[in-house]
Amino acid sequence: MLAEHIEKIVAGTPGAIGAILMGFDGIAVVQHLAPGYEEVDIESLAMEFSFRITELRKAAQSLDMGDVNDITLRGTSRTLVCRVLSEDYFVAVVLAEPGHLGKGRWLLRSASSQLVEDL
Amino acid sequence: MLAEHIEKIVAGTPGAIGAILMGFDGIAVVQHLAPGYEEVDIESLAMEFSFRITELRKAAQSLDMGDVNDITLRGTSRTLVCRVLSEDYFVAVVLAEPGHLGKGRWLLRSASSQLVEDL
Repeated sequence: MLAEHIEKIVAGTPGAIGAILMGFDGIAVVQHLAPGYEEVDIESLAMEFSFRITELRKAAQSLDMGDVNDITLRGTSRTLVCRVLSEDYFVAVVLAEPGHLGKGRWLLRSASSQLVEDL
Repeated sequence: MLAEHIEKIVAGTPGAIGAILMGFDGIAVVQHLAPGYEEVDIESLAMEFSFRITELRKAAQSLDMGDVNDITLRGTSRTLVCRVLSEDYFVAVVLAEPGHLGKGRWLLRSASSQLVEDL
């Protein structure tokens, strides 16, 4: 079920390279890569940011921003959209074309509640 | 001139609490707060993230994401949109209503080149 949700996010997001569901401990639960991107090491990428997301969230809370559940890093070659699912898990979507960020983020948000249920 | 650009970003972004132009050393160049938000300590907020932005950018570069010039943290009570202007400076906009993120980001992006010229 989890794999299905992750696949749907990737398939439904134009420009998506892949998506991964990971714990904040850096352990991947499930991932899916778009055709042609099977070589991309999305696990290392998400792992690198898992700790940093936790740090950012702590800082944001101490600054009265509330719970930061949505973090976007738009790079010149790739964009990373992270959605926090719970205290323990997050989903990261990697995009090659930041132009389609809107839809990727929307899909990620609408899939979130389903993912939380299935975890 | 710089102050004018920052004011324009705040005035033109519905839900904007304020904007600040800051160096990555945490030293503020100019800031502007929307009416009713004069008490908000946007300087501390931006300072807290100035170092973290540098860290995130380094990580992103090592992961082949290219230059990350656009970072968004969407919190339950406030949203922070950061736009990197150069190796030394960035602009941060704080929003109370994340729903208007699109316009805030657009204004920030269109003002960026002008800000870089004026720095």
